[in-house]
Amino acid sequence: MTANTNPGAGACPLPHPATETVLLGHGSGGRLSEQLLREVFLPAFNNPYLDQLNDQATVPLAGEALAFTTDSYVVNPLFFPGGDIGSLAVHGTVNDLAVGGARPLYLSAAFILEEGLPMAHLRKIVASMQAACQASGVVLVTGDTKVVERGKGDGVFITTSGVGAMELSRTLSVDRARPGDRIILSGPIGDHGITILSVREGIEFETGLESDSAPLVSPIRKMLAACGGVRCMRDPTRGGVSSTLNEIARASGVGIEIAEARIPIRDQVRGACELLGLDPLYVANEGKFIAVVAAEDADKALEALRQDPLGRSAALIGEVVEEHAGRVVLRSRIGGRRVVQMLAGEQLPRIC
Amino acid sequence: MTANTNPGAGACPLPHPATETVLLGHGSGGRLSEQLLREVFLPAFNNPYLDQLNDQATVPLAGEALAFTTDSYVVNPLFFPGGDIGSLAVHGTVNDLAVGGARPLYLSAAFILEEGLPMAHLRKIVASMQAACQASGVVLVTGDTKVVERGKGDGVFITTSGVGAMELSRTLSVDRARPGDRIILSGPIGDHGITILSVREGIEFETGLESDSAPLVSPIRKMLAACGGVRCMRDPTRGGVSSTLNEIARASGVGIEIAEARIPIRDQVRGACELLGLDPLYVANEGKFIAVVAAEDADKALEALRQDPLGRSAALIGEVVEEHAGRVVLRSRIGGRRVVQMLAGEQLPRIC
Repeated sequence: MTANTNPGAGACPLPHPATETVLLGHGSGGRLSEQLLREVFLPAFNNPYLDQLNDQATVPLAGEALAFTTDSYVVNPLFFPGGDIGSLAVHGTVNDLAVGGARPLYLSAAFILEEGLPMAHLRKIVASMQAACQASGVVLVTGDTKVVERGKGDGVFITTSGVGAMELSRTLSVDRARPGDRIILSGPIGDHGITILSVREGIEFETGLESDSAPLVSPIRKMLAACGGVRCMRDPTRGGVSSTLNEIARASGVGIEIAEARIPIRDQVRGACELLGLDPLYVANEGKFIAVVAAEDADKALEALRQDPLGRSAALIGEVVEEHAGRVVLRSRIGGRRVVQMLAGEQLPRIC
Repeated sequence: MTANTNPGAGACPLPHPATETVLLGHGSGGRLSEQLLREVFLPAFNNPYLDQLNDQATVPLAGEALAFTTDSYVVNPLFFPGGDIGSLAVHGTVNDLAVGGARPLYLSAAFILEEGLPMAHLRKIVASMQAACQASGVVLVTGDTKVVERGKGDGVFITTSGVGAMELSRTLSVDRARPGDRIILSGPIGDHGITILSVREGIEFETGLESDSAPLVSPIRKMLAACGGVRCMRDPTRGGVSSTLNEIARASGVGIEIAEARIPIRDQVRGACELLGLDPLYVANEGKFIAVVAAEDADKALEALRQDPLGRSAALIGEVVEEHAGRVVLRSRIGGRRVVQMLAGEQLPRIC
């Protein structure tokens, strides 16, 4: 028996008890991921940079502030409408720098290939990475390749790391949200997760649905240039919008209230979620960000964002409140209110 | 049939023809790795930083020179005498910065975990990484964790990236070796590869043999402080001493001549190699480096190196010559001469 079952807990299985083996949910971006981070990684590597728990670290180098981030990509399938593991591995890491307020500059790429991978697949992935680098304004300057035996990997895993210049004098951080601040979302949610799911399961929900995987450098720069009141930004990837908002609420010690009716979502994503019993608030995005902005700057931020193709459907979806500190509450279309938790288990493994 | 068989080539199977699928040898650090790099990665990502083909890139940031490197670690088994995948992942990346002449500062770590990995193994690996960071003088500032299904990974893969300050005004580069320069090796070869092999195969050659995995920051700093004539340094990991020397010979357009009798090697490593039919010049090292040094500075470099516990057995093993440009020639103990090629296939998969 693994310790992740909790037979004595009855109707209240949370908080998740510590497990003795790694579960798929430890890679979900939700509660189990956070538990792994807090119980295994943070105590070991304890230092002020890592402890900030931003998606990138800001460290001093030669008197300047350097932004540094890393992510592994294990998405399955390798190719999907709107991108592939290569473009995703560039966009994801570039976005972690951009939402931290840095100008992305350099990328590294480390490949773990499974013996027998068709060379044509690798060439296609690499070409797609290079196109994504060019679109993102970064240069891939160093890399590595390892090969594992058949059945010890799964085609290709890619780890990209990114270095950027933290040019802004202001400090963006997830602990800076304050009551009264507004929550802005840069566009419709769930496109990436539902696209991956539909390809993986062979379900065709609707023609034309694609992953939203894209570099967020341009819309973020427009928004930051237009207003100074941005507290923090995050891209709601694994774990979706709900997990990101929960992280901000906890880190800042504030409540967050969002309105279901204001959250942009495509009809085919909504339909697929209803059909499959998924909550779109937990579905992964790869080309969206959430910004917490001072109330007086929210209109300016929205206006600037909407000037960019990747922010055209940006919306004000809620606000930071003093009540229910550390919790996120959703006002539903029909007037109800419910607490939106962090993702508890694993919704869609290997989404990124 | 995969294209890596070459039925028409008769007695001359080299150069290796392009293959249509990824082979284990593409991760060897030898000729197939180089082919993959030149045929797939370099043409796609073509830029002056990557094209330098050093194990780290030196890039400008805010008027300073920044060193940036990455490596994935897929070693099997995860735990071995002298270290584990965690310490190896720290030392390997720190060493890539150090041999480039940089002061290692910050590390990122991205974990790809296989579902079912015992949490105790992960804790042990993470503790070992932290100890290695402290010994190396680096801080692990950012990270990521993904989980793949059982049978789609192999316990743990770790990708570390490193950032360092390129403090030296001199430029170290593999294309700077010149006829007359001396070749220095920091200590005995083959310990890591033979240790991994013996654990993996359940062979006990001799008690006491351990991986040489270690951070090379201290001996390198002592050597660089003592003399200005260092042309380049490399750590002979995958592909061993012979592949590293071949890379230098080719990049610099010079010949290299080494003397078998001068190459330090432990008796148990030599014995194991003879027993198994392995050439120790191709066996991986994880705590050694090769330096090409101007003739007049070689004694100073050796003396400085020998002051450090990790350079105590440093030796002058050969020199750079005008003849046979691009090739490495070994003078054997019995007076013969033979060309030492780059590793052609795969000697020991998943050695690091």
